[in-house]
Amino acid sequence: MYGPSSTRQRPPSPKQPIVNMGQGFFGYNPPDFILNAAKAALDRVECNQYSPTKGRPRLKKAIADAYSPFWGRELNPETEVTITTGANEGMLSAFMAFIEPGDEVILFEPFFDQYISNIEMPGGKIVYVPLHPPKDGPTTTSSAANWAIDFDELEKAITPKTKMIVLNTPHNPVGKVFSKEELQKIGDLCVKHEIIILSDEVYDRLYYVPFTRVATLSPEIENLTITVGSAGKNFYATGWRVGWLMGPAHLIQYVSAAHTRICYSSVSPLQEACAVGFEQAEGEGFWDETVKDMKGKITRFTEVFDELGLPYSDPEGGYFVMVNMQKVQVPADYPFPPHVASRPRDFKLAWFMIQEIGVAAIPPTEFYTDANNWIAEDYMRFAVCKEDDVLEAAKERLRGLKKYIK
Amino acid sequence: MYGPSSTRQRPPSPKQPIVNMGQGFFGYNPPDFILNAAKAALDRVECNQYSPTKGRPRLKKAIADAYSPFWGRELNPETEVTITTGANEGMLSAFMAFIEPGDEVILFEPFFDQYISNIEMPGGKIVYVPLHPPKDGPTTTSSAANWAIDFDELEKAITPKTKMIVLNTPHNPVGKVFSKEELQKIGDLCVKHEIIILSDEVYDRLYYVPFTRVATLSPEIENLTITVGSAGKNFYATGWRVGWLMGPAHLIQYVSAAHTRICYSSVSPLQEACAVGFEQAEGEGFWDETVKDMKGKITRFTEVFDELGLPYSDPEGGYFVMVNMQKVQVPADYPFPPHVASRPRDFKLAWFMIQEIGVAAIPPTEFYTDANNWIAEDYMRFAVCKEDDVLEAAKERLRGLKKYIK
Repeated sequence: MYGPSSTRQRPPSPKQPIVNMGQGFFGYNPPDFILNAAKAALDRVECNQYSPTKGRPRLKKAIADAYSPFWGRELNPETEVTITTGANEGMLSAFMAFIEPGDEVILFEPFFDQYISNIEMPGGKIVYVPLHPPKDGPTTTSSAANWAIDFDELEKAITPKTKMIVLNTPHNPVGKVFSKEELQKIGDLCVKHEIIILSDEVYDRLYYVPFTRVATLSPEIENLTITVGSAGKNFYATGWRVGWLMGPAHLIQYVSAAHTRICYSSVSPLQEACAVGFEQAEGEGFWDETVKDMKGKITRFTEVFDELGLPYSDPEGGYFVMVNMQKVQVPADYPFPPHVASRPRDFKLAWFMIQEIGVAAIPPTEFYTDANNWIAEDYMRFAVCKEDDVLEAAKERLRGLKKYIK
Repeated sequence: MYGPSSTRQRPPSPKQPIVNMGQGFFGYNPPDFILNAAKAALDRVECNQYSPTKGRPRLKKAIADAYSPFWGRELNPETEVTITTGANEGMLSAFMAFIEPGDEVILFEPFFDQYISNIEMPGGKIVYVPLHPPKDGPTTTSSAANWAIDFDELEKAITPKTKMIVLNTPHNPVGKVFSKEELQKIGDLCVKHEIIILSDEVYDRLYYVPFTRVATLSPEIENLTITVGSAGKNFYATGWRVGWLMGPAHLIQYVSAAHTRICYSSVSPLQEACAVGFEQAEGEGFWDETVKDMKGKITRFTEVFDELGLPYSDPEGGYFVMVNMQKVQVPADYPFPPHVASRPRDFKLAWFMIQEIGVAAIPPTEFYTDANNWIAEDYMRFAVCKEDDVLEAAKERLRGLKKYIK
């Protein structure tokens, strides 16, 4: 059913060791109070054995307790929270739970690429609605808020077959935090057309402007909304594979059932550690610290683009920065290998940067359908969730772009 | 697409705390050398972040090295081994990789129940072939080897649509280790009809008679065989969710691709711990110890059935014991609740044992289609992978069955 992996796994052979600003894994560890909880869990027999399929009770309760204040009511840990094997498998579980062959799912473009196969597995058809980048993106740095939804386009994308819509806020790769007004309009459309909202909020602890959770806008919207969370993103542990979905019991029960069929249960000792994480994060000052640290990294890193005069979308949340590189001129006779030469300009830019300055970043047309590659081919996505010395090393190398900027 | 969970999750209210001999989780911890490796991995930044989608290189190499002697050649860790999120998600990945709607998959009955939904997800149709229990099962203890395949039945089950067959050796719940002759006959049929063999060998370190791996019988059979392994079962850590599939590169590449779409990657720090497990298990004497310990538990536990005159299938492998309870007479007027009264006799026996003697076991019609429930309704499955004091407590309680045995 699936082909083997694509050529993008083919490693280039750069002139120097590269500084990897590409993938969104953290360059540092989870905080000690969570690591210590993981080690303690490994000494407990029941924490090394199967967890209940819906998740360890302590973690479900810790999540319900942590999120109840945002919901303004007590979430029921037994019926409104279910633990999944990372947010990714959680979203797959939601698609498997609700999508029948031919059902349509609306995605904003750019999109996290894993959504596509997850929607297609149960036979869903994807309908794309663009986030329009700011018109002055090639010349001017501005807020990621300026990537805009055309609500006429969104409404026209809705058909009688539309079963779900996927939101992602804070957004990967754009860095946009959807405003309350935007979410209200989307939510109202979903209530009107009975569309299930799958809101991917895995970067929900990293926002630098006011953050709205769509599920909290009204009881009618909440009734249709499943919110996706990720301990990997919250606690700097993308390799732990602990995620969760929250929502009304009448939706969550089907998601739990699908998850049981896909993975049976999720990793037990690290669930226990994440429970401790949620129990103690507030008291440890971790949530405030994580915002301050990441905002600091964004400021530190983007200085180099200000220096170079390369405009970027200033992130409202998350840890990705989209930089517009229209001004960077790759020599016309640059020797790209055929598998790069055939790709959009951002792939060529990524290859060129790896080879010539030793910095890796992600070409954002990865997050676009082929037809819309043109929107993103001058951008490059950088992940700033790295140690400060790595950021400084990347900046020093990026200064090497100067001679290619007209 | 999936309904919420079945009534079997409804807890009974027994007269005393129950001794749980039901589910196959271990009542004790992984060995210290593996726990310590897990704790050490938690201190390493790269072990807390995404693993490669096909698994951490060190684990793939450790598995290739550990299994190469059985294969009689060097397994290639990069192309012939792929890591999955437990054996369960590994098998789902294999079904998703190869099954198109309408393809048929042959399963021996009884079967591990999770296979069913995993085959049905990509639209597979299951064709059941029975393992025939020994005719004297109700009266006589004998080897689990006596659960027999009728090869005429097997051959008749093959059609032009047969795409895969699932083997499970050592077998859950029967405890049978398929003989070399049986596997050769099955393998020959699969070569003749080009059927992919998915060999679930998660109990592969627990065998008490000679154990044959079907993939090693001939190059032609190997070319069609994917072997499933489980660190959870090997290392007493069912909650770790680390499994793997081994097989020829031309099959494994599709399994890896499906796995990437389902779970993206698997739990990173525990993969590293399992790598250390494989690197050190032989030197630590762990594989010999695990066989000796589990065989001892089987001997210790089954004494009580010898005492009671209840015959059982003596396991050739794994940690489950199937006991025939035809002789146990439940009082005719015993007040079963409706959701139990409507089920086969083994469900009633399981309920009765929980209520009256405080021992939980698994009714094996869970592993049968409705039409064939009659084959198993006098049996009960006990998991012996528990501490010896738990086994002794269970035995003491099981002696309470005496007054119900005619």
